[in-house]
Amino acid sequence: MSKSTFDSVEMSLEANIPATELKEVKRILYGKELRKLVLPQSALVAALERDFDLHGYVFEAEPEQIRAARTVRVGLIQNKIVLPTDAPVLEQITALHKRVGEMVDVAAACGVNIVCFQEAWTMPFAFCTRERAPWTEFAESAEGGFTTRFCKELAKKYNMVVVSPILERDELHGGTLWNTAVVVSNTGNVLGKSRKNHIPRVGDFNESSYYMEGNTRHRVFNTQYGKIGVNICYGRHHPLNWLMYSMNGAEIIFNPSATVGELSEPMWPIEARNAAIANHCFTCAINRVGTEYFKNEFTSGDGKKAHHEFGHFYGSSYVAAPDGTRSPGLSRIRDGLLVAELDLNLNRQVADKWNFKMTGRYDMYADEITKAIQHDFKPNIVKE
Amino acid sequence: MSKSTFDSVEMSLEANIPATELKEVKRILYGKELRKLVLPQSALVAALERDFDLHGYVFEAEPEQIRAARTVRVGLIQNKIVLPTDAPVLEQITALHKRVGEMVDVAAACGVNIVCFQEAWTMPFAFCTRERAPWTEFAESAEGGFTTRFCKELAKKYNMVVVSPILERDELHGGTLWNTAVVVSNTGNVLGKSRKNHIPRVGDFNESSYYMEGNTRHRVFNTQYGKIGVNICYGRHHPLNWLMYSMNGAEIIFNPSATVGELSEPMWPIEARNAAIANHCFTCAINRVGTEYFKNEFTSGDGKKAHHEFGHFYGSSYVAAPDGTRSPGLSRIRDGLLVAELDLNLNRQVADKWNFKMTGRYDMYADEITKAIQHDFKPNIVKE
Repeated sequence: MSKSTFDSVEMSLEANIPATELKEVKRILYGKELRKLVLPQSALVAALERDFDLHGYVFEAEPEQIRAARTVRVGLIQNKIVLPTDAPVLEQITALHKRVGEMVDVAAACGVNIVCFQEAWTMPFAFCTRERAPWTEFAESAEGGFTTRFCKELAKKYNMVVVSPILERDELHGGTLWNTAVVVSNTGNVLGKSRKNHIPRVGDFNESSYYMEGNTRHRVFNTQYGKIGVNICYGRHHPLNWLMYSMNGAEIIFNPSATVGELSEPMWPIEARNAAIANHCFTCAINRVGTEYFKNEFTSGDGKKAHHEFGHFYGSSYVAAPDGTRSPGLSRIRDGLLVAELDLNLNRQVADKWNFKMTGRYDMYADEITKAIQHDFKPNIVKE
Repeated sequence: MSKSTFDSVEMSLEANIPATELKEVKRILYGKELRKLVLPQSALVAALERDFDLHGYVFEAEPEQIRAARTVRVGLIQNKIVLPTDAPVLEQITALHKRVGEMVDVAAACGVNIVCFQEAWTMPFAFCTRERAPWTEFAESAEGGFTTRFCKELAKKYNMVVVSPILERDELHGGTLWNTAVVVSNTGNVLGKSRKNHIPRVGDFNESSYYMEGNTRHRVFNTQYGKIGVNICYGRHHPLNWLMYSMNGAEIIFNPSATVGELSEPMWPIEARNAAIANHCFTCAINRVGTEYFKNEFTSGDGKKAHHEFGHFYGSSYVAAPDGTRSPGLSRIRDGLLVAELDLNLNRQVADKWNFKMTGRYDMYADEITKAIQHDFKPNIVKE
């Protein structure tokens, strides 16, 4: 059972644990049992024909007296690249538009209101190569590039908010590159963009070869379907990053990512889920799938031989709720669309139960962090 | 399979998943496979005779050129109360001293350097009752009470640091109560105390009936075996709380807790482990075991009938490492001692790999949190 053929923990549990114990195992590992979302037969057939997995779950809240239920359907799309990494750039982009477009068609059939794609979805995740050409040619204007135009069409066609994480070329500011999520409103307008706040320098990835820490801070987008934030990839390791999206009012925080098994897989189920719990909000963690091959070999600063691949992107996209419940993950090996119906009333219900914001003592932390960043910081250490 | 008879997820996986898949399941759920610590036969026999579980694991680090390995053995003790909750107060305390004392004897035989007990370990977790008598009689001076004197003896006898979370009576400041961990050095001196920073008002627990938010901030104790912090119970839901212990230099953060299944069990494996990852340190989560019966019935503000028990404390104490690896949990139903040998060099090794502190942008967060607590805070929200 190799790391790139094992489908998912969830499937292994279902197949092997006796029913008497399975209920307890799943409760402890995943929280409340989620109702499956009934999806249209046409969507299921289309997913089968287009060779991707399709699963749907419902996160329910209690009925309230004053507020009606606030249900929204989110769609998480994970996919392999389509063409080899040395195909012409524009062909690679176009092939990905086509592939993801046909998955969005199915999302629309499933009633999805907000769809989010994986990090840098229009390209192979080539940052491990440290090469400039041809990878920087994948960068586009957030406001008017091919990909944003493509997303605007989808948004209008399906009355859907589209979160599109791309490599951005910012011509207005010296032509700099950024790792950016473009948020397209369901009206087809660009609502704005959110840049990756924390940039990894880890193993294969020193992404600061390509772009620096984002300067859009923690803006939240007030869409027709709810207030959303986008915490890109490595930002999920930073609890303060999640916190500030939440402080600004985010009800759903998307985490479009690209990460490989050897590096991060045991951390993947923990971090976005912890953020949902700690911040009384929903989080949606999305990771690409497959292994990408690069023509020129590269090294990883780990003493190993130069290589052409840097690991298996393990998919496993999932949704986590403020009560600690999470959906099963999508497959580790196949393209997939995860549809989740969220009742956003759950956020306040859980907040009113657990009170993490009310008991947060943020004045104390503002003071302590302000002191901790000073050059003459004296740690609070008790010695004998 | 009821919630109070199911032993642990880990045991269910071992018993049911075929070996070919088990390796992958465990890697994804728990991280790197840990070597079992070889424990003395005498300790294993004593644990059997004294009717508690005993498990040991080793968290290894890579050898370095300049620094020698910095191994320390921590002991996590989880236990049921011994006498009924209406037995005389001093008898209850003494019975718990005896029970935990005999577990510490075994910890000493296993070479434990730092032992930590569960939250409010000298008493039933009576805060759900909202009664004053007799529960406040369990409160003791942190510096000179029965329990601290008992811990000082253990510390000296075994050259062991003892972390002893008690209900504290602070005579010096108006006789107020606190939820406090007393840290006794291996020399037998009280090194200091650390009070619970965040107080729950959740369901059965409005603990602020008894004590308020701690005023010892995030002090860290520089013991002979490493720098430790103590984040008591509900503080584990607050990522900033973990962060500040780490900012002050904690290499191991203990989380002595008391929490029941219906309330928190799916969150339990997530939060302390996320903190170990996010802060490049070890965390030790400890929860009591069993169901406690109170003579007078009480209600829980949940529309349910008055009752005498408020749920099953599910144990499941575990250790998590900065690389995301965690130990199996102790049993959900039995007393237990978990011994973990930690090489503290792992903290810096993982920090140097993942760089969460280096990429933390704390200046930005100091600024943002400072703004967010102002009355006229304007959330960063983008509208159409």
